[in-house]
Amino acid sequence: MKAVVLLDFWASPFGQRCRIALAEKGVDYEYREENVLGDKSPLLLQSNPVHKKIPVLIHDGKPVCESLIIVQYIDEAWPDRAPLLPADPYSRAQARFWADFVDVKFNECGSRLWKLKGEAQAAAKEEFIGILKLLEGELGDKKYFGGDAFGFVDVALAPFVSWFYSYETCAGFSIEEAAPKVAAWGKRCMERESVANALSHPDKIYEIVGVLKKKFGVE
Amino acid sequence: MKAVVLLDFWASPFGQRCRIALAEKGVDYEYREENVLGDKSPLLLQSNPVHKKIPVLIHDGKPVCESLIIVQYIDEAWPDRAPLLPADPYSRAQARFWADFVDVKFNECGSRLWKLKGEAQAAAKEEFIGILKLLEGELGDKKYFGGDAFGFVDVALAPFVSWFYSYETCAGFSIEEAAPKVAAWGKRCMERESVANALSHPDKIYEIVGVLKKKFGVE
Repeated sequence: MKAVVLLDFWASPFGQRCRIALAEKGVDYEYREENVLGDKSPLLLQSNPVHKKIPVLIHDGKPVCESLIIVQYIDEAWPDRAPLLPADPYSRAQARFWADFVDVKFNECGSRLWKLKGEAQAAAKEEFIGILKLLEGELGDKKYFGGDAFGFVDVALAPFVSWFYSYETCAGFSIEEAAPKVAAWGKRCMERESVANALSHPDKIYEIVGVLKKKFGVE
Repeated sequence: MKAVVLLDFWASPFGQRCRIALAEKGVDYEYREENVLGDKSPLLLQSNPVHKKIPVLIHDGKPVCESLIIVQYIDEAWPDRAPLLPADPYSRAQARFWADFVDVKFNECGSRLWKLKGEAQAAAKEEFIGILKLLEGELGDKKYFGGDAFGFVDVALAPFVSWFYSYETCAGFSIEEAAPKVAAWGKRCMERESVANALSHPDKIYEIVGVLKKKFGVE
């Protein structure tokens, strides 16, 4: 077992955040695929007894859980390369705010785009477009959410770039039209090796969304 | 207007977290009560356009939103006194994990103790007792969740001490019996001036819970 182990599932945007952060820092680690739809491994249950879910980062035998907490841990445990959080307290608070926004607004509403149908789906689409426009406003003309440097908010949001196709196809709209700067940001992120290596192909995500739809009884 | 302003609502455990952190740091600030059940002030809407809710900390005109992000900001902006997060990366990650646990498990389930009735409420009570036992295990024989020093997890959980009476009364159980160390920790927290000054009387919280029950149609 290497000093750093990541318990993960290939399609998980939360796991992908950790992979991106580890790659940005150049940390060598062992990747262990978990069968999230079947039996969980004893190591996962022992490492994350509270939530019992991936991703978990195990560093020198000590587990860290919850993706945004893991990314901050990675940033603090390997501080000498590719800082992800900015240095000044106010910018750090802003980065944490927008990363949290990705979880509680973007991802929450994004999942409703494929979980719902009819009028409820149409309402979720309107809400999602509003969320995209808030991100568009925060990004503005910057290269990354972190400015010139790829940072914490970029790590938090980048995995969802491979979900854009599923969102668009399920709900019938164009992210390019709704938020052209966010769409261009997504392409820029995909040019980074750390992101390109971590993300799944949009077609594979669309397949997973099909599986999830069946699981949630949406057909 | 002072350099530091807190937009808050007296009974909000999230706002109380900020008041406790500011008091621990000895920061002089202006408290502005918001009418959360009525019209929101233009300053609140302008300072937190995304979530439109309290608490908001405004420092030198710049707003910070979301209570745990505000508490981390306070810790980083006034680093010379009463550190709330520990210094080493692993302990910081653990503190963030348990503070998040207070939000996504403890508070979420706690609100179901008064929102629900009958079997659903009984199920929520069983779940809540499990949550208390997890906190009991994490606290162990330490004085505070942060060890000898009052820290981030303590700030996150302390405001809910004045909700204990409402939880117990609505759902019919004893926190003292379910988690005696957490109950004793709550009393220790109340001996701190920062906590005692920020918290509401349990009777006032019980009144607010009555108002919320009517709002949610639970009677």
